[in-house]
Amino acid sequence: MKDIVQDQLKSLSEGTTAVIPENEFEIKIARSLREQKPLVVKLGLDPTSPDIHIGHTVVLHKMRQFQEFGHQAVILIGDYTARIGDPTGRSETRKPLSETQILDNARTYQEQIFKILNPNQTRVVFNSSWLADLSFADILTLAAQTTVARMLERDDFAKRYAEGTAIGLHEFFYPLMQGYDSVALEADVELGGTDQTFNLLMGRSLQRFYGQEPQVALTMPILEGLDGVQKMSKSLGNYIGVTEEAREIFGKSMSIPDELMIRYFELVTPLNKEETADFERGLAAGTYHPRDLKMRLGMELVTLFYDREAAAWARQEFEKVFSKKGVPDDMPEFCLGDLELTARPEVISLLVAVGFAPSRGEARRLVEQGGVRINDVKVQAETTHVEVQSGDVLKVGKRKFCQLTVER
Amino acid sequence: MKDIVQDQLKSLSEGTTAVIPENEFEIKIARSLREQKPLVVKLGLDPTSPDIHIGHTVVLHKMRQFQEFGHQAVILIGDYTARIGDPTGRSETRKPLSETQILDNARTYQEQIFKILNPNQTRVVFNSSWLADLSFADILTLAAQTTVARMLERDDFAKRYAEGTAIGLHEFFYPLMQGYDSVALEADVELGGTDQTFNLLMGRSLQRFYGQEPQVALTMPILEGLDGVQKMSKSLGNYIGVTEEAREIFGKSMSIPDELMIRYFELVTPLNKEETADFERGLAAGTYHPRDLKMRLGMELVTLFYDREAAAWARQEFEKVFSKKGVPDDMPEFCLGDLELTARPEVISLLVAVGFAPSRGEARRLVEQGGVRINDVKVQAETTHVEVQSGDVLKVGKRKFCQLTVER
Repeated sequence: MKDIVQDQLKSLSEGTTAVIPENEFEIKIARSLREQKPLVVKLGLDPTSPDIHIGHTVVLHKMRQFQEFGHQAVILIGDYTARIGDPTGRSETRKPLSETQILDNARTYQEQIFKILNPNQTRVVFNSSWLADLSFADILTLAAQTTVARMLERDDFAKRYAEGTAIGLHEFFYPLMQGYDSVALEADVELGGTDQTFNLLMGRSLQRFYGQEPQVALTMPILEGLDGVQKMSKSLGNYIGVTEEAREIFGKSMSIPDELMIRYFELVTPLNKEETADFERGLAAGTYHPRDLKMRLGMELVTLFYDREAAAWARQEFEKVFSKKGVPDDMPEFCLGDLELTARPEVISLLVAVGFAPSRGEARRLVEQGGVRINDVKVQAETTHVEVQSGDVLKVGKRKFCQLTVER
Repeated sequence: MKDIVQDQLKSLSEGTTAVIPENEFEIKIARSLREQKPLVVKLGLDPTSPDIHIGHTVVLHKMRQFQEFGHQAVILIGDYTARIGDPTGRSETRKPLSETQILDNARTYQEQIFKILNPNQTRVVFNSSWLADLSFADILTLAAQTTVARMLERDDFAKRYAEGTAIGLHEFFYPLMQGYDSVALEADVELGGTDQTFNLLMGRSLQRFYGQEPQVALTMPILEGLDGVQKMSKSLGNYIGVTEEAREIFGKSMSIPDELMIRYFELVTPLNKEETADFERGLAAGTYHPRDLKMRLGMELVTLFYDREAAAWARQEFEKVFSKKGVPDDMPEFCLGDLELTARPEVISLLVAVGFAPSRGEARRLVEQGGVRINDVKVQAETTHVEVQSGDVLKVGKRKFCQLTVER
């Protein structure tokens, strides 16, 4: 029995940044086994944007591991604040979401997370079910469980307060709400990125106040994006979305820095510790070539989000384009006439019109860096207009292609 | 018409510390006169302790003046937080009050405030009527209207934060609730002591957010207590309670420092500006004796809380005791046997037993300062026990007397 507890403790702690506190985690696991009662493992998701990228899957993989040990995953959709939107009334972009939008987003979420989680051991809950019922008195009681100074210790608040950037008083409530969710769910464990540590600990305090055994906070590393430096994020553009095309997922995987490869294997693929350790040794010894392993990473990711067949096809396409300097089998076609461009368009306008650059500034940068080619001939930095003939292939960077026609 | 506006503006601004902002006050008065619509003038009272002292009456006198100009007084009983008690659950002394207790306190309040206010122009309201209905979403919206930095600008919060004294997050809600009360009442003016300035201005911000014309904040000076230094407060013991005996009110009035006399006339009696100005000039010129004016102050206060007859009697009693070194007509009697004391009691125990000292430490201090007399003979500092015979008069300070008997 003691061995089984230790096995579980070891596996579930692997790859985490912190388990707070470790001894309580061991006690919970032992009791769960003894009483044959699964642990309630909570993970909160924000339903304001339904697209998730592989940075989000780091915690999902950990959750999957809990499921494999028979525990109960609870995916908490934080719909309550999404319904409210931006309570200052100032933000145009954070309009309140309707019930339908939230349910739509939640459905999209589920499709994505069930690529990793086992649906039969997953409960999806919405925090509006309990937060909407709290009275002002309940909320004051909740607020009384923390102090202003403690809130201002949270890294981002501390920074903003020091800088003199406004912190709306309502923002102090988000950690409290997240903590109260743990009370409502009687969570045994809460998962989160390391940036969630403060909020996970708030759950512990509140559970203690409400007479519950505090949850264990289990934090996972934040995944670096394709640039290998900053955290993966949609707004930085350095991400692999889980709903992207197979070819994109594969291609983007090939673009990560070599040093990041093992970390990606560990954090966002279902490969076990032994396999990744073998890769690490092989790389160091030179028995594995980085390019081959990166191909394996790409295959694993595409298989995870599609299937083996799609992975094989994506790899073929990649090899055709990059190894054989070819062009992909299928690529979008654009008619200059439809884009309201002449047969001698301005390069900048062309790049923006076909969607290869989000802005004229960005398009200019691409040309200046020599990243734009027509029929595999580089467009020079000083070029303003180009002659186009039907059938010409426009290429930007390594993986963006399209075929141009002048008139339909 | 313009003159009437100016008259009202001048009278109502008299004695205030600040009118924020003055130009809006003038606009409101002018419109009220033009449209024959009384201003809604709000004053909040805390129902946790039902006893009020004359320090509290400073704002009530100002309210009375508004009533005399035909405006509508709204006394807001802050019952909502009293129902909650101390939300940290730590304080034994701030237990939640029951509905019955709150109504009892409110009734006691009304008896006291209607000694100054005109009941026919007074509406008494309880803020639980609207605060209890707010949802979490409403509260987040409310919280979003202010920032953490702005809250920390409030004097007491700034001080506590700088000192490292804990500020419970719920405390930030008290100004917001007070401000929201103004929204619920659509208040035109809110009265308060200068220590309420921050909260009154919060009302202005919130009214603006909810699309209302902001109230004018009208602040009154804080009355110094009998010591002439610290603010009048029950816990400092330097107060005159409005329900105290006539003799006590009169006697305490006689004990204030001469320099404070005019201020008391101005702030806590219904005398008008001309009369108090006359007193002030008379004192300076020596045509009024301070002792006579202080007697007048005592008479005014007793008349306010009782009637002319009680005032005349209190004055007679005072003169008998102090001017003629006599003892009052009626004084409490204590039997040493009943107090479980012998005929030769310890002085300290005796003072505590008859209620002339709240603690043994305080009793010791009184003896050491030479403030204790038996049959007008000072009890020396080194005395530990005294011989008592039935009929002896124990006197402490200037106004505390009792007659002792040894056995019934």
